[in-house]
Amino acid sequence: MKDKLPKLYGGIEGGGTKFICAIGTGPEDIRGRVQFPTTTPAETIGKARDFFQHYIQRVPLKALGIVSFGPLDLDKRSPTYGYVINTPKAGWTDVNLVGTFQDALKLPVAIDTDVNGAAFGEWTWGAARGLNNFIYLTIGTGIGGGGIVNRQLMHGLVHPEMGHIRIPHDLNRDPFTGSCPFHGDCWEGLASGASLEKRWGKQPEEIPADHPAWTLEAGYLALGVVNLFYTLSPQRIILGGGVLKTAGLLPAIHREVKNLLHNYLSSVKIIGKIDHYLVSPQLGDMSGVLGAIALARQFTNGIS
Amino acid sequence: MKDKLPKLYGGIEGGGTKFICAIGTGPEDIRGRVQFPTTTPAETIGKARDFFQHYIQRVPLKALGIVSFGPLDLDKRSPTYGYVINTPKAGWTDVNLVGTFQDALKLPVAIDTDVNGAAFGEWTWGAARGLNNFIYLTIGTGIGGGGIVNRQLMHGLVHPEMGHIRIPHDLNRDPFTGSCPFHGDCWEGLASGASLEKRWGKQPEEIPADHPAWTLEAGYLALGVVNLFYTLSPQRIILGGGVLKTAGLLPAIHREVKNLLHNYLSSVKIIGKIDHYLVSPQLGDMSGVLGAIALARQFTNGIS
Repeated sequence: MKDKLPKLYGGIEGGGTKFICAIGTGPEDIRGRVQFPTTTPAETIGKARDFFQHYIQRVPLKALGIVSFGPLDLDKRSPTYGYVINTPKAGWTDVNLVGTFQDALKLPVAIDTDVNGAAFGEWTWGAARGLNNFIYLTIGTGIGGGGIVNRQLMHGLVHPEMGHIRIPHDLNRDPFTGSCPFHGDCWEGLASGASLEKRWGKQPEEIPADHPAWTLEAGYLALGVVNLFYTLSPQRIILGGGVLKTAGLLPAIHREVKNLLHNYLSSVKIIGKIDHYLVSPQLGDMSGVLGAIALARQFTNGIS
Repeated sequence: MKDKLPKLYGGIEGGGTKFICAIGTGPEDIRGRVQFPTTTPAETIGKARDFFQHYIQRVPLKALGIVSFGPLDLDKRSPTYGYVINTPKAGWTDVNLVGTFQDALKLPVAIDTDVNGAAFGEWTWGAARGLNNFIYLTIGTGIGGGGIVNRQLMHGLVHPEMGHIRIPHDLNRDPFTGSCPFHGDCWEGLASGASLEKRWGKQPEEIPADHPAWTLEAGYLALGVVNLFYTLSPQRIILGGGVLKTAGLLPAIHREVKNLLHNYLSSVKIIGKIDHYLVSPQLGDMSGVLGAIALARQFTNGIS
C-alpha cells in the first residue's frame, strides 16, 4: 500500500424510532452502514456494538461519535455524563451510552444531542459549511433545534429546547388547544407532526397539499423561525425533519417569514434572498450520523 | 514609583439619551468619569473627544472601547465598519464612531452594541462572572438583548434584536394592539417602557405598584424570558433597564416564569433557584461603560 491507513471513525445516530450506524471519514467515504429499529436498550445497543465490533476486527477505528435523542447528560463533570436521563422513551432512562460503548469497543467516545449532531454534519459537509452562526431545526414528531454560535455547538444549562417557545395563537382563527403535554399551545404543540396528527386526525403525509392545514402550518413555523432569527441572528436556518418533506411547505414558509419581517430595517439584509437563508439540509437523512462521525473526528483532533 | 504605570483604558457608553465616558481599569479603579446628554453627533462626540484628549495629555491610554445604540455596522470587512447605520435617531445615521475616535485620539478603538457592552461588563466584573452562556436584557424605552454564548459575545447576521420576538397576546384579556411601529404587538410592542406609556398614558415610574399594569407586564416579560430560556439555555438571565427598577416587578416575573415552566422536566434544574437565575445587574448604571473598558482591554490583549 502506498498510503498509510486512513483515519476511520464510527458514528451512531440514535433516534426515537431507528438507529443508524456508520463507519467512514465523510459523506464521500462511508465504508459501512446499518440501520435498525430502536427497541429495548439491550437489543438496540447490542446490534450497534456488534456492527462496530465486527468491523474493528479488520480495521481499527480512531473514535466513535454518538448523537442521540435525550435528554442527555452532557456535563463532563457529572457522574452520569453520557447517560440518557429522564426520557419519556420507555426503558431508556439512565442508559449509559458513552460508558457502554467505551467499554465494549475500547474507543474514545464523543456524544451530543441528535439535533446538534445533524447541525454538526451540515456544518462540516452540508448546507452550513463555513458559517459562524446558524441553526438547524427538525420538524418531525416534535420540534427540536441545535446549531453553531461563534463556530461552536450550542450548549447551555440544559439542552436548547427550541420547540417549547411560545408563539402567538389566535384561538378565534384556530381553536385547537395544542398537543404539548407540558405547555399546550407552545410552538411544538401547534406545529409539530404530532400536533398535525392530533389536530387533523391523520398523519402529516396523508394531508393533501391543498388542505388548509398547510397554510396554518407555514404560519406557525414562520413565527418560530422569526423568533429564532431575532434572538440569534443566525447566518442561515436549516429546516429538516419529516414534516418539511411536504411539497410546497418550504416556499410557503419563505412567504410567511417575509411577511412577518417585512418593514423591519435590520432584517433587510436577508429579505431579498430568503430561499438562500431558510434552506433544506444537504445531507438528507445522513446529517445526523455524519455529524456523529464529524464529532468523533473532532474529538481526536483528526482534522484531515 | 515602585510599580510600572498601570494599563489604562477609555470607555464610552453611547446611549440614546446620554453618553457616559470613563477612564480606568475596572469598577474599583475609575480615574475619571463624565456624562452628558446625547444631542447632535458633532456636539456629543466633541465632548467625549475633549474629555479623553484632556486626560491623554497627562497619562496615555492603551485603547478605547465604545458601546453604543445602533444599529451599528460591526462587520470588520465592511467599508462602513464602526458606523451607526439606518438609525431612527435623527442625525446619527452614517456617523463613523470608530474612525472619528481613532483619528482624534490615535488609539485602537473597539466597538459593540450597548446591550453587548452591558453584558460584557457584567460578565467581566458583575452578575455573570465565570459563566459560559448568559443573556443580558434591558427593558427600557425598548427591549434589547445581548450576551455570551460559548464564552464569546453573540454576533450574527445582524444584531440580535430580541425585543422583536412574537409572544402570545390574548386580545380578549388585553385589547391594546402594541406600540411597535414595525410589528405592533411583538414583545417590545407589548412590554417596553414605550408600550407602558402608550397603553396607560403615563411614564412607567408614575404607574403605582398596585396597578394592574404590573401583573400584565410581569406576564409579558416572563413569556419573553421563557422563549429565550428555551432557545439558548443560558446559565443566567440578567434583567436590566429602567422598567425593572419598579419595586416588586422582578419577584413577579420570577413567579410568572415558574408558572410557565412548571411541569417541563428539562427546566427542573432551575426551578428551585429562580431568584439566582433571573437577576438584576450588579454594576448598576455602570455595566455599559465598564463593558466598554473591558472591550478595550480585551482588544489590546491586556488581560491584567
